[in-house]
Amino acid sequence: MSPQRKLLLLGTFVHCKTQQDLEFLHDAGIAVDAHGKIAAIERDVGDVSEAKTRLLKKLGWSEAEVDVTQAADGQFFFPGFVDTHIHAPQYANAGIFGKSSLLDWLETYTFPLESSLKDLAKARRVYARCIRRTLSHGTTTATYFATIDVAATNLLADLCLSMGQRAFVGRVCMDGTEVNPAYYRDASTEESLKATQQTIEHVRKIDPGFDIISPILTPRFAPSCSREAMSELAQIHRETNLPIQTHISENPGEIQLVAKLFPEADSYAGVYDKYGLLTPRTVLAHAVHISEQEADLIAQKGSKVSHCPCSNTCLTSGPARVRWMWDKGIDVGLGTDVSGGYSPSILEAARQAALVSRHVAMGIEIPNEGGDAAVEKEKEKERVKLTVEEVLYLATKGGARCVGLEDKIGGFKVGMEWDAQLVTLNAVNEDGEVRELDDDEGFVDVFGWETWGDRVAKWLYNGDDRNTKRVWVKGKLVHRRK
Amino acid sequence: MSPQRKLLLLGTFVHCKTQQDLEFLHDAGIAVDAHGKIAAIERDVGDVSEAKTRLLKKLGWSEAEVDVTQAADGQFFFPGFVDTHIHAPQYANAGIFGKSSLLDWLETYTFPLESSLKDLAKARRVYARCIRRTLSHGTTTATYFATIDVAATNLLADLCLSMGQRAFVGRVCMDGTEVNPAYYRDASTEESLKATQQTIEHVRKIDPGFDIISPILTPRFAPSCSREAMSELAQIHRETNLPIQTHISENPGEIQLVAKLFPEADSYAGVYDKYGLLTPRTVLAHAVHISEQEADLIAQKGSKVSHCPCSNTCLTSGPARVRWMWDKGIDVGLGTDVSGGYSPSILEAARQAALVSRHVAMGIEIPNEGGDAAVEKEKEKERVKLTVEEVLYLATKGGARCVGLEDKIGGFKVGMEWDAQLVTLNAVNEDGEVRELDDDEGFVDVFGWETWGDRVAKWLYNGDDRNTKRVWVKGKLVHRRK
Repeated sequence: MSPQRKLLLLGTFVHCKTQQDLEFLHDAGIAVDAHGKIAAIERDVGDVSEAKTRLLKKLGWSEAEVDVTQAADGQFFFPGFVDTHIHAPQYANAGIFGKSSLLDWLETYTFPLESSLKDLAKARRVYARCIRRTLSHGTTTATYFATIDVAATNLLADLCLSMGQRAFVGRVCMDGTEVNPAYYRDASTEESLKATQQTIEHVRKIDPGFDIISPILTPRFAPSCSREAMSELAQIHRETNLPIQTHISENPGEIQLVAKLFPEADSYAGVYDKYGLLTPRTVLAHAVHISEQEADLIAQKGSKVSHCPCSNTCLTSGPARVRWMWDKGIDVGLGTDVSGGYSPSILEAARQAALVSRHVAMGIEIPNEGGDAAVEKEKEKERVKLTVEEVLYLATKGGARCVGLEDKIGGFKVGMEWDAQLVTLNAVNEDGEVRELDDDEGFVDVFGWETWGDRVAKWLYNGDDRNTKRVWVKGKLVHRRK
Repeated sequence: MSPQRKLLLLGTFVHCKTQQDLEFLHDAGIAVDAHGKIAAIERDVGDVSEAKTRLLKKLGWSEAEVDVTQAADGQFFFPGFVDTHIHAPQYANAGIFGKSSLLDWLETYTFPLESSLKDLAKARRVYARCIRRTLSHGTTTATYFATIDVAATNLLADLCLSMGQRAFVGRVCMDGTEVNPAYYRDASTEESLKATQQTIEHVRKIDPGFDIISPILTPRFAPSCSREAMSELAQIHRETNLPIQTHISENPGEIQLVAKLFPEADSYAGVYDKYGLLTPRTVLAHAVHISEQEADLIAQKGSKVSHCPCSNTCLTSGPARVRWMWDKGIDVGLGTDVSGGYSPSILEAARQAALVSRHVAMGIEIPNEGGDAAVEKEKEKERVKLTVEEVLYLATKGGARCVGLEDKIGGFKVGMEWDAQLVTLNAVNEDGEVRELDDDEGFVDVFGWETWGDRVAKWLYNGDDRNTKRVWVKGKLVHRRK
C-alpha cells in the first residue's frame, strides 16, 4: 500500500454505542494516521478548532501533513456500512424477479446471468458498476458471492482492491448436479476445489496480508454442493482460518430439498455442521425458517446470520426474526442479497429490517379473550419491533461482528480503522421555498427544529446515496459526490 | 387560466392498458392542445419525426405554435402519479414515528405538529416543500388532508394552484372531544361546519371550475367527529357532489374505540354509512381490518379505498389485502399517508404495495398434510402477490378512479388531460466504468440487454425522484430536474 496522507475529521460524529443506543459526538475531532487507523479522538471540547489544535498537539502532527475534512453544520460522520451478503454478478438483475420464489428464481433469472459473466468484458461492466454503486451508498465492506468462474472472480477481487472497497470475495462452489444446471456448474469436485484454491492464491498475490481483500470459502448452498466439497472446504477453513459463507433455510421448497438430499442430517443447519461448515467465521444468509434447535446449534457454534429483509420479502421467502436470533445469542448483520433483494443499499436494508420486524409483530396473534396471555402477546409484539438505533447497529457493528472485523470497523474508537461516510441532509430554507429545488442532496428535509435523533431517523427512512457525500475505507477517500 | 403553448411529445410512452398489462408505444407522438388536453396520438409510425409530421398535419398546427419534447433513447413518458391519501402538514415529520402505533402516534407526533401550523409562516414552509417534493416524485394529483385551520388550509390550496399540482384540499373536521386534544379541535360542531364552508368558498374563488383544485369534505375519522358533523358533511356532499375522504379500520385499538363510541352501528363502515358518508365519491384510507360484510358494503356503495402500505407497516397497523378488495369489486388507489408513511413518493408506495402483498402471501398457511387443500392455498398464495404492472396501475389509473378523475387522467388517450412525467434511467457505458459516477440520474442502471418490461421493473424497484426529469399537469410543465 502506498503511504497515505494523515486525516483530521472535525464536526459531529454518530455511531452505535450499544445495540440500543447511538452516541453523538458534537464539536469533536478524529485523527487518522497514515495507515488508516484512528490515532486519537477529541470530544467535549466545545469547539472544532479547539479539537483540531488539541489533536495536532497531542499527536505531534503538523497542520501541513494532514488533510482536514470539516463536516458542515447539520452534517455528520457515520461508520461505513457492512453488506454481509451480496451477489456481485446479480447486480445487473436488480429489480428483475417477477413473481418468482427461490428455486424458480435461480433457474429463470440467476443462473443464466451468472453463467454469462465468464465473458470478462461483461463481468467488468457489471462488477465495476456494482462496486461503484455500493460504495456510493456507503458500503465500505462487502461480502461477495462471485460466480464459479476463476478469472471473473479474480477480476472482482482486483476491482475491489483498485476501487478501494474492503471485500470478501468468494468463488462459488457448485459441484452438485441436483439443482445446478449443466451449463453452470463445476466440472467435478476436484475441479471445484482447485478453482477455489486458484482464487485464494490470486488474492494472496494482490493483497498478501488480506488487508482490504480476503478470500471467502463459498459453498453456494447445500443442494449445490457434494458432501466431499463441503468437507474439503471445511478442511481449508481449518488450515487457513479463512471465512465461510453460504445460504440457509430461505424457502420451504429449498428446505424440503435439503431434507431429501441429506437424509443423514436432522436439519439444514445439521447438514452444515456435519460437514464442518458451522464455525465462528461462517456467515449464513437468510435463516428465515430455522428451528429452535437449529438456532441453538448456530449460536453454540458461534456462526453468524446475514439478515436479508428485502430479498426475503421479494422472493416471498418469509420474515426472519431478528429479535429471536438475538435472544438466542446469534450475531446478526444485514445483507442486501442483490438481486434476490433489489436494492444495493444497506441503508435501504436497514429500513426494510425495521419494516419486516413490524410484519413479524403484526403476525403475532393477540388472543381475543384478553387476560394475561393477551398482555404478554402485546408485549412481545412491541418487543420484536426494531428501532432506528437497532437497525443501524445491524448495518454497522452487527455486520462487522458477522465478518470478524469488530475490532477494526463499525464504530469510532482509537485503534480502529477509518471506514466511514460523511452524511448530509437538506436544510429547508426559512422563506417557504416555492422555487425550483436548487440542490440535489436527496430528499431528506430538515426544518431545523428536529432533534439529532429525529435527523438520524429521517436519514434512515428517506435517505439515499445522495446523502452520502464522502466515503473512506481504511483512511482512503474512495467515493465523493459532487 | 392563461393560455398555454401547445405540446408535442415524441418517443416512447408507457401506461397501464389494463390492471394486468402495460402498453408500450414506441416511436410515437402525442399532441396536447392549449387546454392541456390530448388532441391526437400517433403510433406505429416507426419514426418519431414521421409521428410529428403526421400530428401537425392532422391537427392543422404549425411547428411554431408547439413546444416539442422528444424523449431520448431509453427514456419514456409515463402518466403522473395519483396520491389518494397524504397529510400535507405531517410532511415535516416524515420518518419520525419511533415504535408508535396509530393512537399514540397521533398524540405524540401528529396533533402537536398539525396544531402548530396555524402559524402561517410555518405552514408555508412545510406545505411548499411538501408540494415541491411530491411534484418532484411525479405526483401530479394529491388528495390532501390539511389541518383544522381555515387560513392554513386556504394557503395549501393557493400553493397547489400556484405550483400547478392538481389537488383535493380538505380542511380536517375534528369537532369531537374523545380523541382530539383540547389544544387541537374545532370549537363546536357549528364552528367546524362554518370553517369547512369557508375553505370551500375559498377554492371556489381561486379556481371556480375546480379545474385544478377541488375542496374535499374531510371528517378526520369517526372518533374525531360528532354524529351531527358527519351528517352535515354528508348533506353538503349531497348538495354539491364534493368528494369525501376519511380513515377506516387502520388499527385494532381504533376499531375498538369506534365500536365503543358508536354502539348504534354494527361496524366501522356501518358508522360512515349510517351518517351518509359512504358514497361513490368517498375515499377511505387504510381499510386494513375491514370484514367481509364491510367490504361488501363499501363495494355496494361504490366507495373507494386508498391503500397505504408504507404507513400500515410503519405504524404496525396490518397488511391490507388489495387482491381481496379487488375481488370484492372495490376500486383501490395508493396513498403515501405521509407521515404515517415516511415516503412522499408514490413510486415507493407502489414498491411497498408489491412487498406488502408478498407479506400477505407469506401469511397464508399451507396445510402440512398436503393434498388439494394445500394446492389451493399455494395457488392463493401466488395469486395475492401483486405484479409490477398491477402496482403501477394502482399508482395511476387506480388512483384516478378513486378520486373520480378516470376520464381525465391516469393514461394516454385522446380527450384525456396531459398529466405525465418523463422518466430516464442510467445507461451503463460499455467500457466497464470504474471512474467516478458522472451523472446524477438515480441509481437504476440499464446495461442494454433488458426488455422494456425489465426496465420498468428496474424503475419501480430502484427508481426515485432523480428518474423523473419532467412533470406536467394539464399540459403545463410544473417540475423539471436539471
